[in-house]
Amino acid sequence: MIVLNKIYNPGKSTWSEILKRPTQTVADIENVVLDVFNEVKEDGDLAINKYTEKFDKVSLSTTLVSKEEIEIAKNSVSSDLKEAILMAKSNIEAFHAAQKTDKVSIETTNGVNCWQEKRPIQKVGLYIPGGTAPLFSTILMLAVPATIAGCKEIVLCSPPNQEGKINPAILYTANLCGVTKIFKVGGIQAIAGMTFGTETIPQVYKIFGPGNQFVTVAKQLATKFGVAIDMPAGPSELLVVADETADPSFVASDLLSQAEHGKDSQVILVSTSKDLIEHVELEVAKQCEVLPRKEIAEAAIANSKLIYVSDDKEALELINEYGPEHFIVCVSDEAYYIDNISNAGSVFIGNYTPESAGDYASGTNHTLPTNGYAKQYSGVNLDSFMKSMTFQKLSKEGIKNIGNAIEIMAEAEGLQAHKNAVTLRLQSLKNS
Amino acid sequence: MIVLNKIYNPGKSTWSEILKRPTQTVADIENVVLDVFNEVKEDGDLAINKYTEKFDKVSLSTTLVSKEEIEIAKNSVSSDLKEAILMAKSNIEAFHAAQKTDKVSIETTNGVNCWQEKRPIQKVGLYIPGGTAPLFSTILMLAVPATIAGCKEIVLCSPPNQEGKINPAILYTANLCGVTKIFKVGGIQAIAGMTFGTETIPQVYKIFGPGNQFVTVAKQLATKFGVAIDMPAGPSELLVVADETADPSFVASDLLSQAEHGKDSQVILVSTSKDLIEHVELEVAKQCEVLPRKEIAEAAIANSKLIYVSDDKEALELINEYGPEHFIVCVSDEAYYIDNISNAGSVFIGNYTPESAGDYASGTNHTLPTNGYAKQYSGVNLDSFMKSMTFQKLSKEGIKNIGNAIEIMAEAEGLQAHKNAVTLRLQSLKNS
Repeated sequence: MIVLNKIYNPGKSTWSEILKRPTQTVADIENVVLDVFNEVKEDGDLAINKYTEKFDKVSLSTTLVSKEEIEIAKNSVSSDLKEAILMAKSNIEAFHAAQKTDKVSIETTNGVNCWQEKRPIQKVGLYIPGGTAPLFSTILMLAVPATIAGCKEIVLCSPPNQEGKINPAILYTANLCGVTKIFKVGGIQAIAGMTFGTETIPQVYKIFGPGNQFVTVAKQLATKFGVAIDMPAGPSELLVVADETADPSFVASDLLSQAEHGKDSQVILVSTSKDLIEHVELEVAKQCEVLPRKEIAEAAIANSKLIYVSDDKEALELINEYGPEHFIVCVSDEAYYIDNISNAGSVFIGNYTPESAGDYASGTNHTLPTNGYAKQYSGVNLDSFMKSMTFQKLSKEGIKNIGNAIEIMAEAEGLQAHKNAVTLRLQSLKNS
Repeated sequence: MIVLNKIYNPGKSTWSEILKRPTQTVADIENVVLDVFNEVKEDGDLAINKYTEKFDKVSLSTTLVSKEEIEIAKNSVSSDLKEAILMAKSNIEAFHAAQKTDKVSIETTNGVNCWQEKRPIQKVGLYIPGGTAPLFSTILMLAVPATIAGCKEIVLCSPPNQEGKINPAILYTANLCGVTKIFKVGGIQAIAGMTFGTETIPQVYKIFGPGNQFVTVAKQLATKFGVAIDMPAGPSELLVVADETADPSFVASDLLSQAEHGKDSQVILVSTSKDLIEHVELEVAKQCEVLPRKEIAEAAIANSKLIYVSDDKEALELINEYGPEHFIVCVSDEAYYIDNISNAGSVFIGNYTPESAGDYASGTNHTLPTNGYAKQYSGVNLDSFMKSMTFQKLSKEGIKNIGNAIEIMAEAEGLQAHKNAVTLRLQSLKNS
């Protein structure tokens, strides 16, 4: 039977130890990644093909997915799954379209008009891992907002299997969501291809999407070559706060849904009810037994923590200190947590809001900050695919009104040419 | 006399060469930076003091600026400068307060409520360089939006001079703008201090502000330790598009105001008028003569480019390819550039809108993406000090409406526990 780590009334001095996330070592990987980057930069498609043969064990004549392949994929996805994907897409579209902001425009001083507009990042790249679980849901989360933002080029890379194919659900969803080009390229070489561009893969300005350690390090390296990334990555995590009003079987199912992601998944329950903690523990053991990914879930659960605290105030403080990626709130006083949570990626409220809802179909985005990054990073949202630009126009009256202040400040900062750009204009207006 | 690089009708194949920015080599610096980081992490204030003695040539008993020091600074800033700073502050406040966004809330499916809220990053750090030009204007650009965002802790680090003092204009402005703590710490050790926290310097979640190559590399390194930064840095740059309606002396003064920043400043003029190019060249030579920072400006101007293109369409394409930090538009058809510019940090429109206006007092932010990063990064704005969080709450009806779709998708992705979290809830609703 699984034994969970139960911690009662931890003193504040122990929080940092209790809430510690496993550190990742990437030094070994960095050299491998750098080699692939250098080769792809130099040799383009030739290097891409070499590494596809090496890592994916398949030789491809072309990496670009053809229209025919997409048609075949469309026909091989079940109508049930298509319907589910369409429903999820519609909710994700609605929520992300609602995030559009108007131009912000004000006259700060008479004759001084300033405005801010958001414009799309023109070229974005999406990375979708292959392997056992085809993450078509992540395509919805990335391609839908990219399309709403108005990105012109939306490139997707995903590794081929040994038959040189990509899972049909991935091709179907990518095509449905406005991806402009799909490439059968995976891992480090995919990130390198989108960073430098090759004869067939376009260079992009920002790369989004999950991946294994190699992909994570490759994305970090891409930022050194002028490409932006969605956010730094870490193992997925869930923190549930629950009291006696929560259903222990629901809570257990949520903890396990996080635990099945990977052995390094972080799972934490914080509760003001010792009774609930006992019941959740029993439920976790029971539900875990029948899971196909039981081995993974068990390993993650072994590192999990069930923490008893005496009141909501202490619970909240501890949760803000942790900054969970996913945060489920199943307590009688929901409003307290909703109003006061400072650091969390996405918040799931009440007994009927499992994390799975946001993972797939409620409409919110599932690409969220892990590893405590909820303290300073947003989850992916519409703005992730845009950048804010500012504009300003001064009339003659405008420069007269603020010109002197600029001259004084430029002078005080020792920047005479900055001052001169104003002085010349003010002078010309005096003369006219 | 200065000779400028004039390029007429460059073929598209030459653009990447013409628009090339100087590459920066940072490998040598990286080891120095890493050493300081390791020591500050280990020894805290002891290491901070050691490096302050080494780099700033001063030994301080305490690094925290006292109330008395702030009072003295207040009294030593001229009332003219105070008035100018207050005016600039008022405009910057107005423009950034206007960027506040409401909660975005929608019901994506009956019973499925999703909302997005922005909440402040609780602890931010601002770095303000020392040296000859005291950049109090940058404090306005960073501390004003941080305060509007609601950041709880706003820490500022700036190096002391050899008398152990910070320029009064910096202290006055920091105090005026709601900075909570000011430290006399500069360079690498300041960034390291805010990254790890020391006995006196608080650890922060995000670091903002300009600096020399050492500070730039230190900020990059900070991101490896879980701290976010405003944006990657590069030399400042200006691109002006101007036609025969522009005033050559104004254009020249703007190019020079950019050029005086540093020898590596990037200055480009794009024009559809050969006549204008000739006149600007003459004006640059004339105005440069009388500048106190003439030597710096001349060096930057020597690397500058005056590019003649045949029409606005080609000009725009070239400008979008470059993605300038500052973009001045002095042409008869302003709207064409305003509507179609895709990549620029901040845009200055018309003959009476020098870059200096945005640098100091119009209200827009002057912390902007350089090095082509305007293609994918926003300049600093209110959202830079906040993060977007999402919330969702499903009613019983809500989970009934989308539950089946979630089950199908989770199953198709091979995530049985994700499915189970929904199944259990649907089951309990059937039974009730």
